[in-house]
Parts: sequence; structure tokens; C-alpha cells
Amino acid sequence: MRIVVLAGGIGGARFLVGVREVARQLAGRGTPAEVTAVVNVGDDVTLHGLRICPDLDTVVYTLGGAAANGKPGPRSSALRPAQAADRGWGRRDESWVVKEELAAYGAEPTWFGLGDRDIATHLVRTRMLDAGYPLSAVIEALCARWQPGVRVLPATDDRVETHVVTETEALHFQEWWVRHRGALPAKRFVFVGAEAAKPAPGVLDALAAADVVLLAPSNPVVSIAPILAVPGLKDALAAPVVGLSPIIGGAPVRGMADRCLATVGVECTAAGVGGLYGARSAGGILDAWLVDTADAGTEVDGVRVVDCPLWMSDVDATAAMVRAALTAAGLDV
Amino acid sequence: MRIVVLAGGIGGARFLVGVREVARQLAGRGTPAEVTAVVNVGDDVTLHGLRICPDLDTVVYTLGGAAANGKPGPRSSALRPAQAADRGWGRRDESWVVKEELAAYGAEPTWFGLGDRDIATHLVRTRMLDAGYPLSAVIEALCARWQPGVRVLPATDDRVETHVVTETEALHFQEWWVRHRGALPAKRFVFVGAEAAKPAPGVLDALAAADVVLLAPSNPVVSIAPILAVPGLKDALAAPVVGLSPIIGGAPVRGMADRCLATVGVECTAAGVGGLYGARSAGGILDAWLVDTADAGTEVDGVRVVDCPLWMSDVDATAAMVRAALTAAGLDV
Repeated sequence: MRIVVLAGGIGGARFLVGVREVARQLAGRGTPAEVTAVVNVGDDVTLHGLRICPDLDTVVYTLGGAAANGKPGPRSSALRPAQAADRGWGRRDESWVVKEELAAYGAEPTWFGLGDRDIATHLVRTRMLDAGYPLSAVIEALCARWQPGVRVLPATDDRVETHVVTETEALHFQEWWVRHRGALPAKRFVFVGAEAAKPAPGVLDALAAADVVLLAPSNPVVSIAPILAVPGLKDALAAPVVGLSPIIGGAPVRGMADRCLATVGVECTAAGVGGLYGARSAGGILDAWLVDTADAGTEVDGVRVVDCPLWMSDVDATAAMVRAALTAAGLDV
Repeated sequence: MRIVVLAGGIGGARFLVGVREVARQLAGRGTPAEVTAVVNVGDDVTLHGLRICPDLDTVVYTLGGAAANGKPGPRSSALRPAQAADRGWGRRDESWVVKEELAAYGAEPTWFGLGDRDIATHLVRTRMLDAGYPLSAVIEALCARWQPGVRVLPATDDRVETHVVTETEALHFQEWWVRHRGALPAKRFVFVGAEAAKPAPGVLDALAAADVVLLAPSNPVVSIAPILAVPGLKDALAAPVVGLSPIIGGAPVRGMADRCLATVGVECTAAGVGGLYGARSAGGILDAWLVDTADAGTEVDGVRVVDCPLWMSDVDATAAMVRAALTAAGLDV
């Protein structure tokens, strides 16, 4: 079974842990399963001369058991302090010496948290990019260390950079999201460079061979939409597409999706996001839409809606979501 | 009184602490004194995409009280472990998280010690250089934090990179020095780019205005020579030039100057190095040459040789060396 997942950062990473778990279970029962993650690059940013890929790194760190996201990985059974568990991004057991020193130099910006372990990743990436390697080759090199157990691909090797247009300025998504905590009223999001971007090597092949495409419960506006904005990608969604709602009971499971949805004029509900993706039969992409049991009864025109628990509280709960999604695609799990 | 010092790394940095001390004493007695350090850039190297200036950083860190060189600075009275005191380069209270992570990625080279605090300096520098600022502007920016108390100038903003030619290859000086500990037999040193280099802004003006030029007891072959290799610099030595021998009793005070001297066919003695610099009257640059009392009786053709203790064991001892050098230049201290 070939599973492709379109994913953003933290929500996508946690979801992928569940997908990997289901793939392992399937393989254990004699059904080999391959998982390919196609990850958002719209959040990528250059800070202090370092190229930073928040979503890709969160996915790779999380699947590699190295993330500070409260999910113990294979490399450590030690309990981590609540702060690290709550951070949700970056490396576990992180230190902050370089960040403090940069601040002592007055080097801007100071609002982005670059941990020491994380910086090594950014140094490796920046050096490879400067040497001419595409981002997909960089991620492959990083994965040689972290062994995520799924194939991790950037949506594109080209620049697709999410900018936020406010009344008075246009700023990089990271500045809006991290520095301003999404508090500056946004008029719209722009995926700079998207028109000229090409899918990264392997993306179209993975989609062509897929038995199912899952939309992780990531932010639809700034995580999934920039992936789908890469020309050719939406048209390559030949397999059944099953989305999982990142909204439960009218609120985002995590993060500030509500602010992003408001910007694009979409109600912050499971129905609203389902409608935003839209039915394949109506020019959208969804064949099925999974909502939490709290949102049972949700209707999306032209889309089969299935309800099941969507809280990714642990790997087993997440794997159950994945099985429900595969079942909704008509696959036998 | 205007004092210009040509300096390399550790020896130059310690010497400059003494020069600064003498300048303070002079100012306290009503004789304002300005110190300009013209520092070697031949050791500069790009590693992991970061531009590293070992000599300039050692000078700035040491004068700023931030160096791991065994000389407590104004910012800390805490005792440091012997290891840090012995390291001689980089920052005190250093940590090595990024270096360990880079090694875990298999990122080469692993033989150069990039500490976390140090890396912040290299990030600031690399970013400024990439943005188009010349190295001299970078050093000025770093000095805004470290307040070295002397003006620190790179010899040049252009590339002057010391390479070592062996029987079989040519390699960057850092690789020969740090990785191979100078053990590969060297045929000669080449200052790549020197012919086309220009003195950094301020260097020629400082030399023109100088009352004395001191050659720090740095490595004559790979620290002072690359400075003098910048076209126009040697001709600008109008003021009396007084050198201080880095060789005492036939051995380098520190480092591997003996290996470098052997390469250029110069005896590892105070007389040998004095002869290498040569008398101004014979086309060299020296007006006077200070040797340690252990080398009393040393003669250098056409140069006035003065002996005095040249061990920079503490600031007072170093200041005494500086006073002897200024006196040898005919200045009243």
C-alpha cells in the first residue's frame, strides 16, 4: 500500500508518527506499506544567514525521535521538563548559547528561537544549499541521520514563501506568526514564487503511484494550501483524497488556524475547512473528510464525511485515525 | 602618542593587552596614547559556511576579556578550568553542542573547534560579509560589543590566505596547522591573493600618523609576513619600527614557529628572526630588535638590539616589554 501524506509542521509530524505506525502494522501482517510525506516549505526562512525549514525539520525531528514535542522517541526514555515537552518545535535536550550570544551582539531578529542543536542542522543545510544542492537532497542527507522511517519530501525545491499582507505591510509568515503571534490583522496570504515552482523530485511519482492521499490535520490555509499551490500538484491527486479536520468543536486542535481561517473568510469549524478543500466532484480535492466525534453530523457538499476521535493524544490514538482515513478511502486495513 | 602594532593571534593578543596597559598609564600621566592593531588575516578560513578569523577574534576576545586564554578579563573573576585556560583560542566558558551535532551529521571538517559562543560571532560576521560589508566593518561591529580599548583593523579587507605547499599538495594554513599540527613537511608558504590586496581602510593612515610601529612577538612567517605582504604596507612604515622576538633561547615562546622558520630556511633564534625582518638600512624593516635577556649579545646587522625579559607572564611583565620597545624607538615613557 502506498500512502502519501500532505503535511505541515507539528500536527503533520504527529500525524505521520501514526501513519508510520499503521504502515508497520500492515507490513507485520504481510501488506508492505510505503509512506511518503510531502511537506510544506512556505514557512521556510533565512535568519542569521541560516536557511531554516520549520515544517520539514519538525517532521524529521519528530519521526527521528529527536523533537521537543512531548512524544518520546526511540533514542531517549528520559522524562523531559514540561517546557521542552510544550515547546512543540525544535530539538529535545536543546541549549541556547548561540541565541544568547547573538542577542548580546544585538543581531536581529531575536524573536525566533534558534537552539544550538537546531543550528547544526541549519548549518549543514545552508552549506549544502550554497554548494548547489536542492532542498530535497538536503532533506535526504538529514534523513540519513534521523531515519524517519517514511520518505520525506519538500513540496518543492523552489521558493514558495508564505507572506502575510496586512493593512500597512507585507511580511514573512514567520514574522507574523512567531513575532506577532498572528495578532496583526491579516488581509490575505500570498505564496511568493508559487506560480513558477515545480514539484520536488519524487513528488509527482509518489502521487501517481499512491493508493491514497491523506491531508494531515495541519493548518489548511498556511500549511496545506502552499503545498497545493505548487503547479501540477493538485492535478496529480489521482488516488482517493481523505482529509482530517484540524478543527474540533469549532477550535483548532493546536496553533492559530482560527486566525488564518478568518483571514480567508472561512468559518472555524470542521465543516468550514471541509468546504474550503471542497469536493473533488465540485472542483475541490476531497473524496472523504474525517471530523471528530464532537462534530458528528457535519456535512460538506459532495464529500463523504466520517466521524471518529481526532485527538492525537498518543501513537495508538493517531494510528486509529489513520486506519479510519484509509478505510474511508476504501482500503482494507 | 600613536602606537601601531602588527599582530597575529595569541601572542599578538597578549602583547596588545600590555600595549593597552601602557597607553592607559601614559594617558594617566597626561600623554594621550592611541593604539591601533593591524592584524593578520592569512589564517582566515570558511568552515561549515562560516567565515572564521582566528587572529582577529583572538585579539578582540582577549582585549574584551572574553578569551579562553588564561588571562582573566574584566567580565569575570571566576576561576576557569585548566583546560579552558590552556586552550589559548576561542571564548571562555565555551560549550560545544553545535560541534557535536555537526559531527553527528558527519559534516566535515571535524578537526576545527567551533564553540557555541564562537559560532555566534561567525554567524554575525558571515551574515555581514554576505550582505556586502567589508571585514573591517565587521570587526568594528564586533568591537562595539567587546570594547577592546584599542582600534583593531584587519591588515586588508581582501583575500590574503596563507596556504602551505608540501611535496604533494597545497593546503590551507589552518588545515596544516590545526589538523596536521604542522607535521606535514612544508616546502613554502604562499599568501594567496596578496598581490591584489589593498590595506584595509585606516591602516595606511594609522601608519602615516604613527610615532612607532611595534612588531608583536608573533610568528614572523605566518602572522607578520602576511600583513607585510599587502602591497603598500611595508612602504608605509615611516615611523621607527621595533620588533620583539617570539623566540627565546632558541625555542618559540608558544606555538610552532620553529616549523615555519625551518620551512623558510631561517634559524630558530632571536638573531635568525631579527635577520629575517632585516635592518631598514639594508632593505628590511627593523630599526630596533628586542630579545630576551637569555639572548643577550644577539647581533643583527644594522639593527640596534636591546635585551629585556620577553616572557608575557602577566600584564605588568608585558607592559614592561612595551615600555622597553617604546624606549628603543626613542620615545619618552
